[in-house]
Amino acid sequence: MEAPWITFRPEIKVLDCTIRDGGLINDHQFDEKFVRAVYETCVAAGLDYMEIGYKNSKRMFPPDKFGAFRHSDEEDIRRIVGDNDTPLKLTAMADTGGKSDWKTQIQPKEESVLDMIRVACYVHQIPEAVDMINHSHEMGYDVSCNIMAISAAQDAEIDQALEVIVQTPASAVVVVDSFGALYHEQVALLVAKYQKALEGTGKEVGIHMHNNQQLAFANTIEGIVRGANRIDATMAGVGRGAGNCPMELLLGFLRNPKFKVRPIWKLLQDHFVKLRETLEWGPLAPYNITGQLNQHPRTAIAWRAGDRKDMYAEFYDKTMADI
Amino acid sequence: MEAPWITFRPEIKVLDCTIRDGGLINDHQFDEKFVRAVYETCVAAGLDYMEIGYKNSKRMFPPDKFGAFRHSDEEDIRRIVGDNDTPLKLTAMADTGGKSDWKTQIQPKEESVLDMIRVACYVHQIPEAVDMINHSHEMGYDVSCNIMAISAAQDAEIDQALEVIVQTPASAVVVVDSFGALYHEQVALLVAKYQKALEGTGKEVGIHMHNNQQLAFANTIEGIVRGANRIDATMAGVGRGAGNCPMELLLGFLRNPKFKVRPIWKLLQDHFVKLRETLEWGPLAPYNITGQLNQHPRTAIAWRAGDRKDMYAEFYDKTMADI
Repeated sequence: MEAPWITFRPEIKVLDCTIRDGGLINDHQFDEKFVRAVYETCVAAGLDYMEIGYKNSKRMFPPDKFGAFRHSDEEDIRRIVGDNDTPLKLTAMADTGGKSDWKTQIQPKEESVLDMIRVACYVHQIPEAVDMINHSHEMGYDVSCNIMAISAAQDAEIDQALEVIVQTPASAVVVVDSFGALYHEQVALLVAKYQKALEGTGKEVGIHMHNNQQLAFANTIEGIVRGANRIDATMAGVGRGAGNCPMELLLGFLRNPKFKVRPIWKLLQDHFVKLRETLEWGPLAPYNITGQLNQHPRTAIAWRAGDRKDMYAEFYDKTMADI
Repeated sequence: MEAPWITFRPEIKVLDCTIRDGGLINDHQFDEKFVRAVYETCVAAGLDYMEIGYKNSKRMFPPDKFGAFRHSDEEDIRRIVGDNDTPLKLTAMADTGGKSDWKTQIQPKEESVLDMIRVACYVHQIPEAVDMINHSHEMGYDVSCNIMAISAAQDAEIDQALEVIVQTPASAVVVVDSFGALYHEQVALLVAKYQKALEGTGKEVGIHMHNNQQLAFANTIEGIVRGANRIDATMAGVGRGAGNCPMELLLGFLRNPKFKVRPIWKLLQDHFVKLRETLEWGPLAPYNITGQLNQHPRTAIAWRAGDRKDMYAEFYDKTMADI
């Protein structure tokens, strides 16, 4: 057989967003030992980037309710990584929609161990995203733009968004399947569309998949095969609702000697078995249902928090009735 | 966007192998109420086939240790399905390798509610499989040939096997990824190879995927998109080790009005939440590891049964050392 699935491509950069995305389950109330273990694992595994948290607003996400990595103040990051004297690059995400006080939270890069700011927006928030991208770039950071919930965006909206972003200093644009609704053929079409829009600019296409239909890893593979070079994953696939593409599966697929998978198995045995006792994530039935219906997982998250959490047919009926 | 993923194709036949494959976890020690609930759900969901068990030997799988559906005697099947006065067709699987007393266990179809016999073999067992296919066909059944562990077979072996099977009365040949090792590009190549070998014969290609790398559903989609028309899945993805392609996800993808997904959510809430309390299946770390390494999951199954079941790095080291 031919081997199109052998994808050792030096341009591929893997980003771990365990703390940032996983923190959406528990308001970022992680033990700092856990955050440090993830950081050390990212270094040991040879990953390219670790996204340590959000640069979101303390007014909207008060520190008495949300953990440090919802805001990612410089001193909190340094308490974990010191001066980060490693090849691992560090990123933080800033949300549009007024969720980030980005003008004050994103300070000059000379004062920060962060290397990159990732701006997350819905397709209708592109104008605000552009301001944030420009600001972050002016502050000295590498910047990416993560357009969320792309399965719910119209084709023409995506085209227009890409036309705008291509003119910004963002070095990557990430296809984000927030609802876990995409099938891999759709991922292929989206990656092709992004590549065409970014052609000749040197900007890279990225991919961030959710696991509502047990397709996060498969869709990530598809993105890679189609040319996406910025790849998001999390340890054990942890993440809000159904979770993300599991890092341990991704590295097994990449077969790139620069990545080591053993540190990740060690992290999972030492920290994630215990984490699962208190945090729930994964492709449970309610997430399957919202994924199939291309809906935000918030109704499924609420259902799993209630006392009828295993009443799947009831959740299905309610969801169908609400369409 | 174009819509290559809309795959409502009347030729697609969906087979539920919940009891047959799931029984490998618990030696087929299912409560008969559970087996009946699965049967009734298959009917209510509009599925095409239900595989109720194995036609395997009572000498090798003694009835004091193995439940009824390891042998699938006619009276046991009828206790569940009566005369099966429904559109659902019934199948049983017979293993090669001396595991089935097929000459006596596969009786004339006039005396059975079964519609089809599926012969399962490794690629080196094709000669015995041919005898079993011929016998089952002579007894009046529709027959398929399921070549297992295809990820460990050499290309030339597969070609030779297909050359032989194409001359038998088998109406379908199923690509079986027993190790859960395939990526979807490999599935595409295998389905294309099978289709080419079967071209013009009217025989169909089938697909049976395991979930070691969380790819069972994605690989099943790939098989369908590439033209496989006989599709295996199980309720909640139950099955030995990492399990199978989940039926509830498959039906959501097919969007074929003949299939109803709600009865499956009801079955899952009524029976599978409880089943999970005593049976373990799913893409746990040891299954990820054997899948990545293209190995039989037996070492991972044994590991999960031991007291170091969550020591993933240790299992990884042991597995790497044994290669």
